[in-house]
Amino acid sequence: MGLGVVSELVRLGVLSSTSDHASVVSINLFVALLCACIVLGHLLEENRWVNESNTALIIGLCTGVVILLTTKGKSSHILVFSEDLFFIYLLPPIIFNAGFQVKKKQFFRNFMTITLFGAVGTMISFFTISLGAIAIFSRMNIGTLDVGDFLAIGAIFSATDSVCTLQVLHQDETPLLYSLVFGEGVVNDATSVVLFNALQNFDLNHIDVAVVLKFLGNFCYLFLSSTLLGVFTGLLSAYIIKKLYIGRHSTDREVALMMLMAYLSYMLAELLDLSGILTVFFCGIVMSHYTWHNVTESSRVTTKHAFATLSFIAETFLFLYVGMDALDMEKWEFASDSPGKSIGISSILLGLVLVGRAAFVFPLSFLSNLTKKSPLEKITLRQQIVIWWAGLMRGAVSIALAYNKFTRSGHTQLHGNAIMITSTITVVLFSTMVFGMMTKPLIRLLLPASSNTVASEPSSPKSLHSPLLTSMQGSDLETASAQIVRPSSLRMLLSKPTHTVHYYWRKFDDALMRPMFGGRGFVPFSPGSPTEQSVHAGR
Amino acid sequence: MGLGVVSELVRLGVLSSTSDHASVVSINLFVALLCACIVLGHLLEENRWVNESNTALIIGLCTGVVILLTTKGKSSHILVFSEDLFFIYLLPPIIFNAGFQVKKKQFFRNFMTITLFGAVGTMISFFTISLGAIAIFSRMNIGTLDVGDFLAIGAIFSATDSVCTLQVLHQDETPLLYSLVFGEGVVNDATSVVLFNALQNFDLNHIDVAVVLKFLGNFCYLFLSSTLLGVFTGLLSAYIIKKLYIGRHSTDREVALMMLMAYLSYMLAELLDLSGILTVFFCGIVMSHYTWHNVTESSRVTTKHAFATLSFIAETFLFLYVGMDALDMEKWEFASDSPGKSIGISSILLGLVLVGRAAFVFPLSFLSNLTKKSPLEKITLRQQIVIWWAGLMRGAVSIALAYNKFTRSGHTQLHGNAIMITSTITVVLFSTMVFGMMTKPLIRLLLPASSNTVASEPSSPKSLHSPLLTSMQGSDLETASAQIVRPSSLRMLLSKPTHTVHYYWRKFDDALMRPMFGGRGFVPFSPGSPTEQSVHAGR
Repeated sequence: MGLGVVSELVRLGVLSSTSDHASVVSINLFVALLCACIVLGHLLEENRWVNESNTALIIGLCTGVVILLTTKGKSSHILVFSEDLFFIYLLPPIIFNAGFQVKKKQFFRNFMTITLFGAVGTMISFFTISLGAIAIFSRMNIGTLDVGDFLAIGAIFSATDSVCTLQVLHQDETPLLYSLVFGEGVVNDATSVVLFNALQNFDLNHIDVAVVLKFLGNFCYLFLSSTLLGVFTGLLSAYIIKKLYIGRHSTDREVALMMLMAYLSYMLAELLDLSGILTVFFCGIVMSHYTWHNVTESSRVTTKHAFATLSFIAETFLFLYVGMDALDMEKWEFASDSPGKSIGISSILLGLVLVGRAAFVFPLSFLSNLTKKSPLEKITLRQQIVIWWAGLMRGAVSIALAYNKFTRSGHTQLHGNAIMITSTITVVLFSTMVFGMMTKPLIRLLLPASSNTVASEPSSPKSLHSPLLTSMQGSDLETASAQIVRPSSLRMLLSKPTHTVHYYWRKFDDALMRPMFGGRGFVPFSPGSPTEQSVHAGR
Repeated sequence: MGLGVVSELVRLGVLSSTSDHASVVSINLFVALLCACIVLGHLLEENRWVNESNTALIIGLCTGVVILLTTKGKSSHILVFSEDLFFIYLLPPIIFNAGFQVKKKQFFRNFMTITLFGAVGTMISFFTISLGAIAIFSRMNIGTLDVGDFLAIGAIFSATDSVCTLQVLHQDETPLLYSLVFGEGVVNDATSVVLFNALQNFDLNHIDVAVVLKFLGNFCYLFLSSTLLGVFTGLLSAYIIKKLYIGRHSTDREVALMMLMAYLSYMLAELLDLSGILTVFFCGIVMSHYTWHNVTESSRVTTKHAFATLSFIAETFLFLYVGMDALDMEKWEFASDSPGKSIGISSILLGLVLVGRAAFVFPLSFLSNLTKKSPLEKITLRQQIVIWWAGLMRGAVSIALAYNKFTRSGHTQLHGNAIMITSTITVVLFSTMVFGMMTKPLIRLLLPASSNTVASEPSSPKSLHSPLLTSMQGSDLETASAQIVRPSSLRMLLSKPTHTVHYYWRKFDDALMRPMFGGRGFVPFSPGSPTEQSVHAGR
């Protein structure tokens, strides 16, 4: 039965090797390397410098070197970087899990700041990097790059890597920073889609008010419709599972339905040319708020860990993949006749990324602080530095965009394009390794009393951050803190408009949404459930 | 960010549509249909005729008809049947889960009978069908088929569909039949690999004793080495997780490691030209015996349900896929000039399948009964009829082999080949639908007192089959029954040699294996664990 496997594996396209045998070898190698990453990541858990993504990157690089040596310099990687693999299979589980496990209260409290950073900030960063690239690169002799290419460079290097952020910032340690930087990363994606589409569709020689307005309208449409699609799919899954009581016959059907509907939301968004990442993120939020409470206890444990595991495997694979792809000889050979120039361009790009991010983090933080009345809610300068730093990493998203712009099916013959690809890889590797490694120590240095002082929930007691609770589902922590906050909520209502919105949302949620779609307190009590035992009345 | 997705989806190869947009559409359609299958399967759960595979097949067929009508007869399917998709992605989770959830005691008690059925039985079936095909088809005018083709037909239609078996027989209702028919299906696969390889490699014009001996040696090597590889990978995973205590830092790492190592075992077997199905099956057995007990309680719940869910999704997808592929116009057009002949060939093949299976089930059952002393352990005639019937279904394995033999990359131009493909599809559809639907009623008719009388564990009390226990992990049931059996084990030891083997295995397991690889009773007690609470001393 095994013969068919080998004979046609190459048709899968994911595998680009020349012989059939090599395809099976490459799958084996990748799975074995993933196992190695997991074991090494476990052993290096206590290390303050290394995180899982760096381990995977280094293992990928080392494997690349070994393959280079064994094939005598012919090729370093087994897979050609495939945008499809990335966008269709690896990204959805990562982003869905982020939405599923995110602390919703924290996220929505900072919603305005997040949108400001993600939308306006990305635009500022895009213009800074593009203008900088035009000013500097046009004076260097690096092949045929036109205005469109420079603007594309701006878009490519404005794409914060939300996956990296998830690795270096921890929700439980620095909840405010996590929600700001990660939330920004998600919104940033929608901005990048519009930017990139705009660069391909709009006539760049005639930029006037109409084009800018169309651009803004497009962005709002994209943001709203993507969000609504995600919310709709999430609610639909909650309704189906609650109405049909699918857990009655089989736990597996519940889990399968949740997985498939989450994936469906992403693919539907791609089908409708929306931002799949935004959609699947909000689908995750809605599913953790409603659907997760409608399923049986074992489904709850299973989904929580299975989604996290899938996301974890996808992340590790991604870094491994980027590490191995970095040593692809084809591009380096084209760029190798001018090593000094290559290093120069990479350094300039890194500088532009640093400046571009600084150009919006500090001014927008200042703006955001103006709207906040309580000094506890303001973003301190030290926190601003961490936000600036933690969003500097560029990752697989940048590489995917660069490949899309500067290659045809992963190959390029043009000198300028090859240099842009190698520079992108250099920036990604450098920022992930160096910036990534320095983030943990930097946070410890700048925010020594870490979690509790940073937490933007002023009235939440310290005991909430006990290790016992950190492994709990985000929503549990929320509910607990919401309950404790309640006595003083009248005062907070008067002082903070966000809380007013939250108060009415809760009323609406309790009166209309939960009776229809389920959720905490609106499903039959299942005895023995650790999460249900604690609080039952809901917020 | 979404632009890369669409632009290169076709390169993935899984998707064969002509335009990029259609690829995203097809993924959407498939995921939506999978959701529909799950919901419908839930609603039809109580129905005595329909099972999940039939639902998926019918939905697939209906979708095919709808697509045929909308595209005005141009194409019915969105995906070309891909052996890779089947062998690399869909089959491993299904077979691994079967090994992971199988009742090990039942399986190993009938090990000899299973091997007899799977190896010798498949050979008998292969020769019966091949000889029948040569005798009948060579007199009909159906294009250019040589001896090799006829022998291939024998191999294709000897491949029992173990996935179908899992759907119609239930481990808890008919444990003996389940283990016999499913176990046979797994061994059957190894036989098919050798058969198919032999047909391609051996010179068919010179069959002598040396070739037959080489063939037998090859089979034994394949069987043993595949099993050993699976056992080795399983033990390695148990050892790593126990020694490094991976659950200390992260539950997700444990789950990821189990998943990846199971998949690695399958791919390693394919790399070494062994039977991946046998390997991953035994890896599943070892993992459920050792590794599963070494992980944290939440990992245990997660793996149990996540593996079952993945297997469930893969099964449903498979039947959906076969249903949609059945209406592929290309092959039907080639065969359509002689509809009578097509139906004739399909009927003859169905007849040969019926005869070929009868030709080994009844004689081999007779042989197997000769070795059994207790009348309770003998396979009754009624049970033999169920075994014969339940293994009649042909499924995706047959289709994959037929495509491998009679097409080039899913396309064929030869009249004879097209007829063989359409006949295979017809046989698969007919056997799955009609035979599959009739299996449940047949079992009720022939074995009215179902589970308890069929159970081959004479001393196991009826209370064991209470609904409370049926959802438990297989090994728990085992241990419980083993404990209850113990008082009379001296008598059983004397009367049954299989028990002697089991007794020594248990001693070896307790003295050497469990202290090293973990397992029930050899891992730290985790409070609150429902499975650990019951029995702790182990068998």
